[in-house]
Amino acid sequence: MPDILILTEKDLRACVALDGGTVDIVAEAFATLSGGKAVMPPVLRMDMAERNGEVDVKTAYVPGLDGFAVKTSPGFFDNPKKGLATTSGLMTVHGVETGHVQAVLLDNGYLTDVRTAAAGAVAARHLAPEAMDTLGIVGTGMQARLQAQAFCLERRVDRVLVWGRDPDACAKAAKDIQRLTGRESAPAASLAGLARQSQAIVTATAARKPLIDTGLIHSGLHITAMGSDSEHKNEIAPEVVAEADLFVCDHHQQSARLGELHHAIGAGLVPEDMEVTELGAIVAGTKPGRTDADQITLCDLTGTGVQDTAIAVHALKVARDKGFGTVIAN
Amino acid sequence: MPDILILTEKDLRACVALDGGTVDIVAEAFATLSGGKAVMPPVLRMDMAERNGEVDVKTAYVPGLDGFAVKTSPGFFDNPKKGLATTSGLMTVHGVETGHVQAVLLDNGYLTDVRTAAAGAVAARHLAPEAMDTLGIVGTGMQARLQAQAFCLERRVDRVLVWGRDPDACAKAAKDIQRLTGRESAPAASLAGLARQSQAIVTATAARKPLIDTGLIHSGLHITAMGSDSEHKNEIAPEVVAEADLFVCDHHQQSARLGELHHAIGAGLVPEDMEVTELGAIVAGTKPGRTDADQITLCDLTGTGVQDTAIAVHALKVARDKGFGTVIAN
Repeated sequence: MPDILILTEKDLRACVALDGGTVDIVAEAFATLSGGKAVMPPVLRMDMAERNGEVDVKTAYVPGLDGFAVKTSPGFFDNPKKGLATTSGLMTVHGVETGHVQAVLLDNGYLTDVRTAAAGAVAARHLAPEAMDTLGIVGTGMQARLQAQAFCLERRVDRVLVWGRDPDACAKAAKDIQRLTGRESAPAASLAGLARQSQAIVTATAARKPLIDTGLIHSGLHITAMGSDSEHKNEIAPEVVAEADLFVCDHHQQSARLGELHHAIGAGLVPEDMEVTELGAIVAGTKPGRTDADQITLCDLTGTGVQDTAIAVHALKVARDKGFGTVIAN
Repeated sequence: MPDILILTEKDLRACVALDGGTVDIVAEAFATLSGGKAVMPPVLRMDMAERNGEVDVKTAYVPGLDGFAVKTSPGFFDNPKKGLATTSGLMTVHGVETGHVQAVLLDNGYLTDVRTAAAGAVAARHLAPEAMDTLGIVGTGMQARLQAQAFCLERRVDRVLVWGRDPDACAKAAKDIQRLTGRESAPAASLAGLARQSQAIVTATAARKPLIDTGLIHSGLHITAMGSDSEHKNEIAPEVVAEADLFVCDHHQQSARLGELHHAIGAGLVPEDMEVTELGAIVAGTKPGRTDADQITLCDLTGTGVQDTAIAVHALKVARDKGFGTVIAN
């Protein structure tokens, strides 16, 4: 068996950043997925109710890459009470010739954070209006910060407004976003105010009831909803999914199973066989993204195994080139 | 984040063996599973047809244990042509309080081999006839050898007969089994001859068409079928499932989805809602195992996540006690 490279979060932070190169890698993975050539089984999910915890496992085979990743993401919701992060986890990379383990990426969820933010950048690239002054960020967590950064890689933004239920968390997120993006950033007084002033909104919450309803949308608005990754999460009212001029998602079946499409189908507002544009088809140029400034566009990102495989294989390559990690003889 | 312990196959071989203690741990895990308290999602399976490979991911939460394991098992069927093992893989262990990674068990499939064999021992303990002289082993791979060893932990056996398609592989397996078990062991001239002379048979093959049909079964026979772990594998003719006096499996839904029950239901020979005895219910004493010497008993082992969690948590405990492994600061 080949030696195995162990990479820590610190190693991986030194190898992979949220930048244009990473966004391109994730965009390419989406294109492969939507081209029908990737293999991506449904997410394995285990709920541990008596621990208030869950674990998700994602994987995908992406032709053209020399490895595939298996990602384990635990989420334990009592962790913050203990001063610990809710999510953690790791990825393993296996060679596509033999299946043998090549590397263990002990990223504590860092690579997931980056590839999730990068997906937001891909959505912004193809769907956000060209002319923007204000970006609205809904949510005050790590991903709210990263989505603001990601968006600013793709569009000129003068100002970022942030809304969340907790005013203190909101103020802190706005301050961090200003530092991270270099754009003026402020808490929004209300979600309605944020929506009115923004040309694009990114929702990055764990909401179980819709935050964005039809009263908040307006001509030319783009919304990226990246919070929902399970059946019970829901950020966007089904009516908004039905009324958007263009509904896009990262993966049709997954959005219909556990994303925003799931709730819209459940509400009977869109047909189960609704024609859906996948983000990767837009990347590949086989379907159009935004075609005019007045369109209302909505992109549902559920998080896909192809993103994990793409970023893990990339991280391993960089780490090898730079000589990072601990080699374990196998 | 807590430090992470990396354990190699060599470490793990020094910590866990196929012995009575391991069999008891696996038996206990089955009892918890059948008692309805464990959480065990369906296996995640990804087929990579263009690589002639697949990967299975299994996990389970077992109340009472302080960790849960996620196991990744790749199987790449062109590996033997390259002089490499078909299967490989690893397990990760996460704390049940936080979900954080505690350890990475780079076992290359060793712990799977042991827990699979241990399940065979649990089946033998409760289902094989008390009075035995001959055990029949069908298959000539690693697991054929381990199943013979496991069986001999539970029953006095004078002789082991081995049958497989390739006479050379069969002779080699018989020789190894004699060395490993200390019992006289010989290749069987035919599968029918093996069946006639054996009071118990263990099938450990990757057969896609049944090997054991009704012509081979006789009063008092016990069969453990451990080969089928996917929809297209099948060792036991549906008629044998239907005619057995007692059909037992490790996990009802899993056997009905990808084990021997799957094929019997598919053939219309047993009802979809057939009453099935799980091995763990017999371990727990809530259902009877073999009740008389003349019964024909059949046990289908598909391989369960609870076995993985149980053996991984045990291996980690032993490794920590013995000071094995490499600590990675996290």
